[in-house]
Amino acid sequence: MAAYESYLESHQDRFLQELLEFLRIPSISALPDRAEDVERAGHWVAQRLTAAGVENVEMLPTGGHPVVYGDWLHAPGKPTVLIYGHFDVQPVDPVELWTNPPFEPVVIEDRVYARGASDDKGNMLAPILAVEALLQSEGGAPVNLKFCFEGQEEIGSPQIPDFMPPHRERFACDLAVSADGGQFSETEPLLLMSLRGVCGLQVDVHGASSDLHSGLHGGRIQNPIHALTQILGSLRRAEGSIAVEGFYDDVMELTADERAAIARVPFDGDEYLRDLGLEEEFGEPGFSSRERGWVRPPLEMNGIWGGFQEEGIKTVLPNSAHAKITCRLVADQDPGRILDLLKEHISQHAPPGVTVEVTPMSILGRPYSISAEHWGNRAAAAVLEELYDREPYQTRSGGSIPITGVFQEQLGADTISFGFGIEDENFHAPDEFFRLGSFRKGQVAYCKLLYRLGESTLPN
Amino acid sequence: MAAYESYLESHQDRFLQELLEFLRIPSISALPDRAEDVERAGHWVAQRLTAAGVENVEMLPTGGHPVVYGDWLHAPGKPTVLIYGHFDVQPVDPVELWTNPPFEPVVIEDRVYARGASDDKGNMLAPILAVEALLQSEGGAPVNLKFCFEGQEEIGSPQIPDFMPPHRERFACDLAVSADGGQFSETEPLLLMSLRGVCGLQVDVHGASSDLHSGLHGGRIQNPIHALTQILGSLRRAEGSIAVEGFYDDVMELTADERAAIARVPFDGDEYLRDLGLEEEFGEPGFSSRERGWVRPPLEMNGIWGGFQEEGIKTVLPNSAHAKITCRLVADQDPGRILDLLKEHISQHAPPGVTVEVTPMSILGRPYSISAEHWGNRAAAAVLEELYDREPYQTRSGGSIPITGVFQEQLGADTISFGFGIEDENFHAPDEFFRLGSFRKGQVAYCKLLYRLGESTLPN
Repeated sequence: MAAYESYLESHQDRFLQELLEFLRIPSISALPDRAEDVERAGHWVAQRLTAAGVENVEMLPTGGHPVVYGDWLHAPGKPTVLIYGHFDVQPVDPVELWTNPPFEPVVIEDRVYARGASDDKGNMLAPILAVEALLQSEGGAPVNLKFCFEGQEEIGSPQIPDFMPPHRERFACDLAVSADGGQFSETEPLLLMSLRGVCGLQVDVHGASSDLHSGLHGGRIQNPIHALTQILGSLRRAEGSIAVEGFYDDVMELTADERAAIARVPFDGDEYLRDLGLEEEFGEPGFSSRERGWVRPPLEMNGIWGGFQEEGIKTVLPNSAHAKITCRLVADQDPGRILDLLKEHISQHAPPGVTVEVTPMSILGRPYSISAEHWGNRAAAAVLEELYDREPYQTRSGGSIPITGVFQEQLGADTISFGFGIEDENFHAPDEFFRLGSFRKGQVAYCKLLYRLGESTLPN
Repeated sequence: MAAYESYLESHQDRFLQELLEFLRIPSISALPDRAEDVERAGHWVAQRLTAAGVENVEMLPTGGHPVVYGDWLHAPGKPTVLIYGHFDVQPVDPVELWTNPPFEPVVIEDRVYARGASDDKGNMLAPILAVEALLQSEGGAPVNLKFCFEGQEEIGSPQIPDFMPPHRERFACDLAVSADGGQFSETEPLLLMSLRGVCGLQVDVHGASSDLHSGLHGGRIQNPIHALTQILGSLRRAEGSIAVEGFYDDVMELTADERAAIARVPFDGDEYLRDLGLEEEFGEPGFSSRERGWVRPPLEMNGIWGGFQEEGIKTVLPNSAHAKITCRLVADQDPGRILDLLKEHISQHAPPGVTVEVTPMSILGRPYSISAEHWGNRAAAAVLEELYDREPYQTRSGGSIPITGVFQEQLGADTISFGFGIEDENFHAPDEFFRLGSFRKGQVAYCKLLYRLGESTLPN
């Protein structure tokens, strides 16, 4: 047994207590009231890095929630690896559906239940503990290390694109490793080949200067809700494809090999629907459910509101109606261009008699993809095969981690995903949990990964 | 000067104090919390009727807000006239837009400001005071009188259709006179020729069993908001007509004379738009704004909601979306048939991948119309010409008073509208007011009307 393995084993009790402490901080980045808690979580991470032996630890202001930096740069001639994760969490609504309060973690049958347990506190703590084990038991790490932990991933990292350029030298690296990710199951590993990008906008339709009596004015003036439903209804064709002119222009079509790789990843469509409580799937024709979720760009309505929403009846003709829309993007769609196309479509489809306002959201991420043959993925695959005794599936994610695009653009660094969450762990939902087996496995896996990366030959 | 005129003049101070007392009762029928206040307003009306000399006064249960009955039946050989009004009021939201609290009436420059001042407490109190003047100063009324004051007009009189049949004998009459109405301006009277009917429904679209992460599931399953916008968008054609099959089948087309009578009623389209803060009107092609508002049936969306509605971003794929829709109906549309057509349309346009539920609302009223040559309208026109020194306009209302259809169906009685509100009095809006000049004029006018009706020859 390697020294780091003994170190990890003998400190699991303390590590678990630390994870519980971390999970007790309600660092919900979406709620302005919780900004201090996000900051507090950042401080916790900074102290934890320092305790692990990481140097030059610093909280960096972003104009929003902070970024925590740290490094350990004593492996001359070796690659520099930037480890990424996030210490902010999703909101907890509907809180009444939680079995236990979301920020009072409980351990039941080797699982810890709490908001952020899997996404991403448990996952991001694992590499810190791995590095502590290496520095404390092995006398050093096999690569140069940098850390970038952010507090705004769950709100789309709005300040990160502006934050990074002046910090390019500080974060310069050969490879980024994201601890915000997962494995296919407890026994089946994966390599993540792509993440979708994201962009969004709010549509506000304004009519008369105040709410009106529908008896007196109904039929005589435009109804903002009706106008909004016409606009929104026009965005998608009945069969499921997006009707916005130019929307698919920059989508890279899948190769036969890519489609085959996706088809090799186990998927039970019936079970998928059963889990969601649905009778049938729906989406762009000509693609499988997995393809739609991983490599095709949907447009989703996240919220809509206007007029009277309570119990009972109010025959109001409301003076405004509103909707929030986000798109998930795939290579090579550019989020800025997609926003322009959406604005153009909406302005062309705006019915008469109302004013239609379109406001881009601060969430903006480029789609990201990486080859299975990338030297980082080769190292990751080797570690995973060793730990799981089988080859990883080549999967993709429908979600977005906008910072991966920033690393690529600003640092010229590719990002591999190396995390140990599993899809059933209710992230973004009530009763989120993390398997403590994954927590322990992640610590060992990171030690092994860093050794592999230290032995890698970088491309010129 | 007639004795009733002296009586009215000498009691105006007390009558105003009584109106203020009536207005202080927050009898909002739409709010379950205010049910006791609606009941209290009913008691106030019952006591006021008794004080006026009306007999057999009774609060009648309806299963919802009560009806107040009273009669005075000592004019043998004369017609029986049923006077109608309502003591419930609209909600007061947005309460912050009121200059004074809505249930603390203030008198400024001969206007009384309060919720319900014009609609309908000021208007319905006038005939009670008129009858008091006749009974106290003239020794009796020139017709037999019955009173029907309800507490649920503002919520569409949901219990009235079931309430009336067992009470048909009690309410039997030759003519109903509605004190829930108005005049064209302070100097121009009107005869109301028609009211629109009303029906409504709620659409609930259900998707997965819980809200989902749009990154993981976006593009793979139906989005309930998107499905709802498709359904709602399909209800109306882009140019403004309703696209529901059969919707216009039973609409009686206007005669050239009817269109001419509508065109004679003054209307300044620019001023109308300016008052509403709008640049242009919108509605069914081929009709004027007045025609659209008075004699054409619109379908209006009163409210819509689903998913994330707060500040900021939540990339949720929501599991439900909802809308409330009401239609205004014109002769001879049947509200039940229109509901059936809407249900059929919605079920035919429901996209795959969601469950669509349609629930009819309790609001239901038949359209109502009456000829200008009706004996009741002839009497009303004569009184108005005497008081205003000009012929009344023949107007119509886009609003609905469902009980008029019930009077016609259950009692075989037509209803004339005889009220003194004016359209600028902000009913259903903040800073509702009633002109005290109209309050006094209404009292005199009702005395004169009852004398005219007493002299009328009824059709066989």
